[in-house]
Amino acid sequence: MATVAAEQNESYRAFLREFPKTGPGTRAGAMLRHYWHPVCLSADLKDIPYAVRMLGEDLVAYRGIDGKVGLIGVQCAHRCASLEYAHIKANGLQCSYHGWTYDTRGRCVDMPLEPADSKLKSRVRQPWYPTEEWAGVVWCYMGPDKENPPPLHKIDILARADGEMILQRGDVRNYSYLNFLENFVDIGHSYVLHLLVQPPVPAELVPYCDQTVDLDFRRMVHKVVETDFGLKSVLVHNTADPNVKYVNTWSMALPSHFRFCGLTAGLPPDFTNDRREGGGMLRIIDDEHFEIFRYTLIRPGNFRGTIFPRVSDTARGLAEGLQGVTERKPHDNRKYAAWEGRPPLEDLVMQETQGVIPDRESEFLVSSDVGVAMLRRMWRKSMDDVAAGRRAKAHVLDNEGVFETDTFKGLVAPDQITIGPRNMPSSKDGRGLIRDRDGRLVFA
Amino acid sequence: MATVAAEQNESYRAFLREFPKTGPGTRAGAMLRHYWHPVCLSADLKDIPYAVRMLGEDLVAYRGIDGKVGLIGVQCAHRCASLEYAHIKANGLQCSYHGWTYDTRGRCVDMPLEPADSKLKSRVRQPWYPTEEWAGVVWCYMGPDKENPPPLHKIDILARADGEMILQRGDVRNYSYLNFLENFVDIGHSYVLHLLVQPPVPAELVPYCDQTVDLDFRRMVHKVVETDFGLKSVLVHNTADPNVKYVNTWSMALPSHFRFCGLTAGLPPDFTNDRREGGGMLRIIDDEHFEIFRYTLIRPGNFRGTIFPRVSDTARGLAEGLQGVTERKPHDNRKYAAWEGRPPLEDLVMQETQGVIPDRESEFLVSSDVGVAMLRRMWRKSMDDVAAGRRAKAHVLDNEGVFETDTFKGLVAPDQITIGPRNMPSSKDGRGLIRDRDGRLVFA
Amino acid sequence: MATVAAEQNESYRAFLREFPKTGPGTRAGAMLRHYWHPVCLSADLKDIPYAVRMLGEDLVAYRGIDGKVGLIGVQCAHRCASLEYAHIKANGLQCSYHGWTYDTRGRCVDMPLEPADSKLKSRVRQPWYPTEEWAGVVWCYMGPDKENPPPLHKIDILARADGEMILQRGDVRNYSYLNFLENFVDIGHSYVLHLLVQPPVPAELVPYCDQTVDLDFRRMVHKVVETDFGLKSVLVHNTADPNVKYVNTWSMALPSHFRFCGLTAGLPPDFTNDRREGGGMLRIIDDEHFEIFRYTLIRPGNFRGTIFPRVSDTARGLAEGLQGVTERKPHDNRKYAAWEGRPPLEDLVMQETQGVIPDRESEFLVSSDVGVAMLRRMWRKSMDDVAAGRRAKAHVLDNEGVFETDTFKGLVAPDQITIGPRNMPSSKDGRGLIRDRDGRLVFA
Repeated sequence: MATVAAEQNESYRAFLREFPKTGPGTRAGAMLRHYWHPVCLSADLKDIPYAVRMLGEDLVAYRGIDGKVGLIGVQCAHRCASLEYAHIKANGLQCSYHGWTYDTRGRCVDMPLEPADSKLKSRVRQPWYPTEEWAGVVWCYMGPDKENPPPLHKIDILARADGEMILQRGDVRNYSYLNFLENFVDIGHSYVLHLLVQPPVPAELVPYCDQTVDLDFRRMVHKVVETDFGLKSVLVHNTADPNVKYVNTWSMALPSHFRFCGLTAGLPPDFTNDRREGGGMLRIIDDEHFEIFRYTLIRPGNFRGTIFPRVSDTARGLAEGLQGVTERKPHDNRKYAAWEGRPPLEDLVMQETQGVIPDRESEFLVSSDVGVAMLRRMWRKSMDDVAAGRRAKAHVLDNEGVFETDTFKGLVAPDQITIGPRNMPSSKDGRGLIRDRDGRLVFA
Repeated sequence: MATVAAEQNESYRAFLREFPKTGPGTRAGAMLRHYWHPVCLSADLKDIPYAVRMLGEDLVAYRGIDGKVGLIGVQCAHRCASLEYAHIKANGLQCSYHGWTYDTRGRCVDMPLEPADSKLKSRVRQPWYPTEEWAGVVWCYMGPDKENPPPLHKIDILARADGEMILQRGDVRNYSYLNFLENFVDIGHSYVLHLLVQPPVPAELVPYCDQTVDLDFRRMVHKVVETDFGLKSVLVHNTADPNVKYVNTWSMALPSHFRFCGLTAGLPPDFTNDRREGGGMLRIIDDEHFEIFRYTLIRPGNFRGTIFPRVSDTARGLAEGLQGVTERKPHDNRKYAAWEGRPPLEDLVMQETQGVIPDRESEFLVSSDVGVAMLRRMWRKSMDDVAAGRRAKAHVLDNEGVFETDTFKGLVAPDQITIGPRNMPSSKDGRGLIRDRDGRLVFA
Repeated sequence: MATVAAEQNESYRAFLREFPKTGPGTRAGAMLRHYWHPVCLSADLKDIPYAVRMLGEDLVAYRGIDGKVGLIGVQCAHRCASLEYAHIKANGLQCSYHGWTYDTRGRCVDMPLEPADSKLKSRVRQPWYPTEEWAGVVWCYMGPDKENPPPLHKIDILARADGEMILQRGDVRNYSYLNFLENFVDIGHSYVLHLLVQPPVPAELVPYCDQTVDLDFRRMVHKVVETDFGLKSVLVHNTADPNVKYVNTWSMALPSHFRFCGLTAGLPPDFTNDRREGGGMLRIIDDEHFEIFRYTLIRPGNFRGTIFPRVSDTARGLAEGLQGVTERKPHDNRKYAAWEGRPPLEDLVMQETQGVIPDRESEFLVSSDVGVAMLRRMWRKSMDDVAAGRRAKAHVLDNEGVFETDTFKGLVAPDQITIGPRNMPSSKDGRGLIRDRDGRLVFA
């Protein structure tokens, strides 16, 4: 692939304008509605309603007295007052203004100021969407045939039971969710942006780290592979030893999952916290806003041990705040001063400054933008499919409804490498080369 | 009346879109301009100009050296500088920029940088409106034939001299004034919204209160009566005694007066502060903003004593701030957390969440919305009348220019009740049933 | 000149709407682009980029490793990330996202993630503008033929070496730059607005001041003279002595220079700080924003000594903050309370309240608006010239590229006065009448 400039014709430009839209009347919004989306954490739903904007629609979630979760339009059908201030009653969510009460399917079940025999209730139907709770998250389906929604596509990592899962939400961004996803599938940026500041490897980790890993993007193998669930970026770096490669894979699953830091082979199990797997997903609020849900699965380990050590890698998010690891210069009056050295912040600065909705028609894509180009082709094809009445691209689910997004990071023998949509080199725990306490490579 | 759904045709929808407009070029704005409107308190006008937006027009009020009040366009006719920063001089309001000076009728009386014999002054006329001062309020008339405005329509309560009048302004809301007025004429909401939290009756008041008043809306008589000044809501509740009814009336007078808490019969005069009468009026700033002027007339009394006692009923407004009487839950992150139990705040939350201008075309009105429906019919007819060159609906004034908006709250013998536009059961002080110190009902 | 009302025809109204525009596609913006504009101070450019919006275009300035200043589009040609967060490298400004690097002429000189032999670089060109550094200021040219820009037009005062130059920037206003320039060329306003509060002359200065200067605008000579560089306002006031006139001149130079407080004759050199000359220029950010650069040239002197003494005349800007010299009244709740007595603040209040872009079509210009009318004619003619392919009005430069904007303030013998574009009465240091220590007038 040389450039995708050839795609810059008018039909592609029309797609680029449709691409970031999320609302109900749009081609991209229609496609997104074929998937389940995260709404909030199960723990967020207590004894008051929880207002939530999803794909440009203003909704309210609530947990009924029976424990079931409802998700209905936030604006009362009667006189538009907000159901965010409604009360949860035995028979549903009761608007505080005149008492109209809705069940989880949007049916009006009470109008307490109307005559008891009034039949008007049956003529009112509030917008509603089916929900599921799984893995501590409330999910919703906003697509066609909502009485019979497709099965929830469960991402593998949230189905795991072999570690402690940390699940966080609340990082809301004021720009298009696609700025985030395009950044994620564009793996090349890591070798510029995230190497602006190169932190030293702590002395006690030096024996376990292969510091000969070649970080020059021009000398590594870089492939983006389409999968059933979305796409996967694969990077194969050389080391000083021709029989040892360093492999890193990242997966993006529809509609908005991102998975990195998969199984690590390269450090002894007892000496690494890369028994830590991370990623997240986006709640798409509307064209110009999204919220990040992040998860980290932690399995026992007693040392810091990523290949690129960070000052604090407990924070995959922005727990440290909007401050990099560099010192602020007195003359640095930019919105994000001294921002370098904290990868999530580095990404934020790039994503945000691209514009709320970037002017993609003015871009100049090149060969290293292969991930971005593939994501757009995937979106475009699914948008066309949905517009033509076909179904959107679908995950392959196992008997439990789980789909695999295998990722891997670590040292590998060259003959173990087969670049393809599945198991490259493997998603089985620990497979690959690691170093023992004496620094020798062994296969695990 | 079953439903007003039949009115939901296209002509009604066109009305609904015109309804909340207030500007000079609109049908609704033209109708509103047939009435006098409150501008500010007399006490607000001291030795500097007072900028005020009225019905979408930016104006400035000032008290001249002669004590007379002027109300003219805020933007100087010369080069658009704001007369909010003008100086009050003997001959009028002098723009600080180049000294152009305007009298209270908008005539330019000085251009100090022009030759003394220049005739240009006579070609300049600033927008201006007639004003009156009455009852501590500055009023203006912005309608046709402003050289000969109609007489000021004086609301009865402000003409009273038998108590202490508390007059407050400053509560500015960022949504349509009609959200407020529709809430006021929709009396049914009180029996849901304002009963979300039911405060206990203090022990010392128990003997004087009839706690058998039946608050179920379905069992009371609810009428909305059109009057010369606007409309009146009447509610007749049953009590345990078939010979005793509890009556409550509320009046809305054109263009934006609201009157509640009228004479109370039900507690002995010496033991009640419902010798307190309240209400207010709106300064309509523009389509999306208004300011509440509130008044309370207090006559001597030594106990709290409303039928529905409140934690503090000295505050009809929001003097307590935006906090209800309930405790804030740690997970309540709504804009208005723990909002229940303070009626003005409860109303604010409903009014504000309906939207700056509610999407009335998506409403579903039912029989208990009879007040809202009548207010809209009144507005619609007056808008049609004014558009056809006829006058808007007018108050009946007495010799002093005062109109009556009689309201009543208290216990009544059934044969005293005649539901109609006037004196139901009476607006005379104290008429109705009260309880003596022994808790016995007597006619006063 | 009686009035300019005759100009208020449709073609003039079309001009008024074009007049405040600054963007690249506009007639007025095209005209402004024929001049050099201030970007920032030389001292602002250190080791990080400096984002700057100029005439509606978002740019970034940076000082390269070689010391040369680049000014290029802020949005990276690749994927729109902001170059405000780029890094300054030996070969240019390197985008932090994927490393694309631009030289000062906008050429892409590196794409580190592309194959080393890729020819794509040559197809990318970032917007760029030529810059010059002179007198502590970075200037740019954004007009046609930018490979061969016209010579920088250097304003005389910044070329001076006979005093201490104080240069400040940072006063950003949120309204059209023309509100400021029209205020400056409208000299009449000084005799109303800036005399709202008349400070007393300190006792020790009384012998040196001619307090008989007649401040009545109707009795002075007021001329506005077009010059090569722009225009000059001249005022000749009477004094009690028919052989002594007080002259004050103010110059406005294209595109946005303002010069006042020129040489003062009237106080002995050793007793005046009017050996202080001031003025400034505007960075035109876009139609609705500008930044003021102010300069003051100070030569030795040991007393305050302006004709209209101020509480503090060290502050030509708003160093004292947004507070006048009057006391704030408790009932003054205007945005700018107690604003009178500080001329820059007085001007700000008038300029800002005219509106972000004033509604010039509703104005009523009169004879004293001669400066405003001339500025508009100048703009209009230059806009027409540029639209017709001719060059804009140009400064006459000397061998050093400097143009003279002579201003003068002081007492003059009537036969010294010749009102014209140059040297009236003179720009030579000290020429005019001054008073000696005994208060006698002598020619210097």
